[in-house]
Amino acid sequence: MADRLTAAILAVGSELLTPHKTDTNSLYLTEVLNDLGIAVAFKAIVGDNRAELTAHVAHALARHRVLILTGGLGPTDDDLTREVVAAHLGLVLEEDPAIVDAMERRFASRGWKMPAVNRRQAMVPRGAAVLDNPHGTAPGLWIEHGGPASAEAAVGKRIVVLLPGPPREMKPMMDGEVRQRLGAIAGATRLHRRLVRVAGKGESAVEEIVQPIYSQWLAHSPMIETTILAGLGQVELHLVTQAEDGASASAALNDAVSELVAALGADLVSTDGAVLEAVTGDLLSARGWWVAFAESCTGGLATSRMTDVPGSSAYVERSIVAYSNRAKSELLDVPEALIAEHGAVSEPVALAMAAGIRKRTGVNVGVGITGIAGPGGGTEQKPVGTVCIAVDAGDPRVRTFRFPGGREMVKALSATWAIDMLRRYLIK
Amino acid sequence: MADRLTAAILAVGSELLTPHKTDTNSLYLTEVLNDLGIAVAFKAIVGDNRAELTAHVAHALARHRVLILTGGLGPTDDDLTREVVAAHLGLVLEEDPAIVDAMERRFASRGWKMPAVNRRQAMVPRGAAVLDNPHGTAPGLWIEHGGPASAEAAVGKRIVVLLPGPPREMKPMMDGEVRQRLGAIAGATRLHRRLVRVAGKGESAVEEIVQPIYSQWLAHSPMIETTILAGLGQVELHLVTQAEDGASASAALNDAVSELVAALGADLVSTDGAVLEAVTGDLLSARGWWVAFAESCTGGLATSRMTDVPGSSAYVERSIVAYSNRAKSELLDVPEALIAEHGAVSEPVALAMAAGIRKRTGVNVGVGITGIAGPGGGTEQKPVGTVCIAVDAGDPRVRTFRFPGGREMVKALSATWAIDMLRRYLIK
Repeated sequence: MADRLTAAILAVGSELLTPHKTDTNSLYLTEVLNDLGIAVAFKAIVGDNRAELTAHVAHALARHRVLILTGGLGPTDDDLTREVVAAHLGLVLEEDPAIVDAMERRFASRGWKMPAVNRRQAMVPRGAAVLDNPHGTAPGLWIEHGGPASAEAAVGKRIVVLLPGPPREMKPMMDGEVRQRLGAIAGATRLHRRLVRVAGKGESAVEEIVQPIYSQWLAHSPMIETTILAGLGQVELHLVTQAEDGASASAALNDAVSELVAALGADLVSTDGAVLEAVTGDLLSARGWWVAFAESCTGGLATSRMTDVPGSSAYVERSIVAYSNRAKSELLDVPEALIAEHGAVSEPVALAMAAGIRKRTGVNVGVGITGIAGPGGGTEQKPVGTVCIAVDAGDPRVRTFRFPGGREMVKALSATWAIDMLRRYLIK
Repeated sequence: MADRLTAAILAVGSELLTPHKTDTNSLYLTEVLNDLGIAVAFKAIVGDNRAELTAHVAHALARHRVLILTGGLGPTDDDLTREVVAAHLGLVLEEDPAIVDAMERRFASRGWKMPAVNRRQAMVPRGAAVLDNPHGTAPGLWIEHGGPASAEAAVGKRIVVLLPGPPREMKPMMDGEVRQRLGAIAGATRLHRRLVRVAGKGESAVEEIVQPIYSQWLAHSPMIETTILAGLGQVELHLVTQAEDGASASAALNDAVSELVAALGADLVSTDGAVLEAVTGDLLSARGWWVAFAESCTGGLATSRMTDVPGSSAYVERSIVAYSNRAKSELLDVPEALIAEHGAVSEPVALAMAAGIRKRTGVNVGVGITGIAGPGGGTEQKPVGTVCIAVDAGDPRVRTFRFPGGREMVKALSATWAIDMLRRYLIK
């Protein structure tokens, strides 16, 4: 452990110990640390409590060379991070006139006078470097220290970094000066990553295909590690490799991604992290096509997702949410007799919805979605989660799904599959 | 500390230390612990690492009487929680034939043979109580122990609870047997809560109104504590009080909520936790009204949100996503000349969209939303975030907003405000 840099992360703030809120800053901090080849050994969340915070700072520094704390840098009595760290390291806190000055100017620029209580935020442990905060009053602090005088801890110099809790203040500091300073200590090894997105298969089905492939990469040089994360109807493959040489890392990742492309076929959405909605939009743009959705059980969610992508007005022209049967007939020309014969949730109706919106609107491709989102409305033959989706650009296709989960999950899966069926049509 | 029960929570699993995933089980655990009057002193997230996990178990039990661990109960070598806890407490692990039996039956019911590796999951520290897991193979464990032999730790019996990581296995265990067992130890004090939802005001504006009120409650008996949480366009007020007597707690919370009702007026959405969409739906149902949305920049999000509520087909009949100007004219009868004169993002066009969908569809109330979600399309006069929303039930009203943030935030705020303007119309 003496040589390898490991880090601990402490999030400070009693609100982070409620049932409603938890630390998420550490995800971003972990990404930056991993980029630099530094592993995160643990994360902890502590309230605004002097004894508890002191115990955790001691516990972390006894075992790890890097400790990053977020939060507890505010101006009130509750904000203890500066004091506790300084006391534990035996450092005197001194007011930094430059910080007071900067804070006073910050307040003055808004026509306010700085409250006296804010002077606490200008207290700096002797020897610490001040990290500028352009987005708030509390500066960050970078402390290098010999470490506490214990036998267990005789593993070299400690780095303690204090960052503000609000993400918009924390992130630029971490990504700027802290990344630079840690990079100088961490050595030349860097983490390189690639994000591959997959749709249309569950996590275990994807695992079955890719496990024989990525397990080989562990023996490669540089070694590539793979993490599989499952979302609703989508799977992410995170590939990471550590290397001193960016070019060889990049080449290794390119080779690895090529193997996935060959194995996954049409299930592969993107190899550069692009989301399903953006990939589908690019495919529409490439053809100069317009799309329109006829949505029932999704209630507009598929169109809302498509229009999350900037520039989507170049291929999304309109959509119809036809929740009632009357709306399906009036707005989409679905014959009432067809609904009476097959039911509103049926492949013929999904096809008629897709054809109806395409013809009415004159777009190139129409998508129809009709299903039972629940919790009511299910029958033995068509239980909750039954959803029919059709894509029509002249040669229509349709599928029936039985989605698991509650109302919101059925809606989300339906929207994802509708967009993915459109994508699959477009890559043919 | 000797008398008051404080708890620590440890989440175990290397995947929880990646940049993509973190512990969320602890939010649910915290809620149950708080219900029983037990405060959470800290939470930590540790990888599948024996030394690190051992250090954290020791650190937690040196300071707190209750330790709850989630994860690391699987059948593989990576799963260390059972072993580490038993070793730290000096307890022998013994195979429990009843668990082996139950696991073998579970596998057999699916036509599989239990892999030998799963026997690990049947190992029980001597003296521990086994917590049934109807949703998975790994049972939970409840251990009562004298505590480690250190001076600092001489604060009575320790409770160590081991729960599986998957939420659908963990939650029923925590809510069932663990809640019951902890309740017997925790004494009679229970937490009582009330969730009040507010819309149409920012966090600081709500704080300004309610702070003078809730600060008084701290002197009440029973004392009521208030937490303010801000979401996109909405604010939550969480009121909690600890009491042995449920009736007096309930009466105190009712009085407190009444004060908020009087102070917040139409900004108050609900006093029972009901979400904006459900409250608005109930108001529509009460009048027997139908609503239809004419959405541009929100791309269907407002309708999708309204239809997240079960039973919403009783008042949502259809909606139109009119993304292009042509769609606004064709589907909503917005005059082209009106768009040419005022621009597509303007109060006259929002009003025409609301009136158009109401008249075309014959619903009681129409809502029109048109705006610039960005990142492109902004001008000096109408920057990104400019959104006009109209509600028309015969006596139309319209507002123009300047929302902050990026595309998805502008969409989310627009949908929230559109639904809230509808709610305000309906409570008049």
